[in-house]
Amino acid sequence: MNTGILVLGHGSTLPYNKELVETLSGMIADQGDVVVRTAFLNMNKPVLKQGLESFAGTGVDRIVALPIFLAHGVHTMEDIPKELNLNEDKKAVTEIDGKSVEVIYAEPLGADPCIAKLAYKRAEEALSR
Amino acid sequence: MNTGILVLGHGSTLPYNKELVETLSGMIADQGDVVVRTAFLNMNKPVLKQGLESFAGTGVDRIVALPIFLAHGVHTMEDIPKELNLNEDKKAVTEIDGKSVEVIYAEPLGADPCIAKLAYKRAEEALSR
Repeated sequence: MNTGILVLGHGSTLPYNKELVETLSGMIADQGDVVVRTAFLNMNKPVLKQGLESFAGTGVDRIVALPIFLAHGVHTMEDIPKELNLNEDKKAVTEIDGKSVEVIYAEPLGADPCIAKLAYKRAEEALSR
Repeated sequence: MNTGILVLGHGSTLPYNKELVETLSGMIADQGDVVVRTAFLNMNKPVLKQGLESFAGTGVDRIVALPIFLAHGVHTMEDIPKELNLNEDKKAVTEIDGKSVEVIYAEPLGADPCIAKLAYKRAEEALSR
């Protein structure tokens, strides 16, 4: 299977969310044989629909929609599922290059110890400033 | 120095952000000899002011305000600094138990490789669902 990952960012009027999502997308692309694209829910482009369309010509058979959000919330539970037209099983079908391609919605990052470790490092950095 | 960390969450009408921030706060408390409290910008309590007040009786000499946000944005650049009354050096002074205590604002999490790794894991989990 040719797998695509659509990295989904919140979007912002300031440039930092887009920079973060694009940097993480590059790091995600380095981790496997996957085609990575980005999209944003609000305020930045491409929007989700454009993000799905951007897999045209890549030959992907399936796409993981990967939310770069720390936790579930209204954006991940309502807005993104609605935009992606997800079914109850958190999946959808989109058409790319005239072919039906499954879209599978991933979970947000969650309370992983690596995030706590990173946060603690940010606290230490602030104290040494 | 007795160090406090005020873990700052976004807040949400759904329970997940609060759960995430509280879980991460527990993990952060396990990493050092620090007094950890939580506060939320929106929709959940304690609010930031209450979060600072909750260090009463702990004997902290300084407090790191640690935003659990992936990237800078309007919340971290405008809303939180305003609520904490930060100066240009991203510091403030608050009064706790009649004593002046420095508040030092930390950076958000940022595009760390550990987050890209965790996101990739979430994509793999979605594919095996």
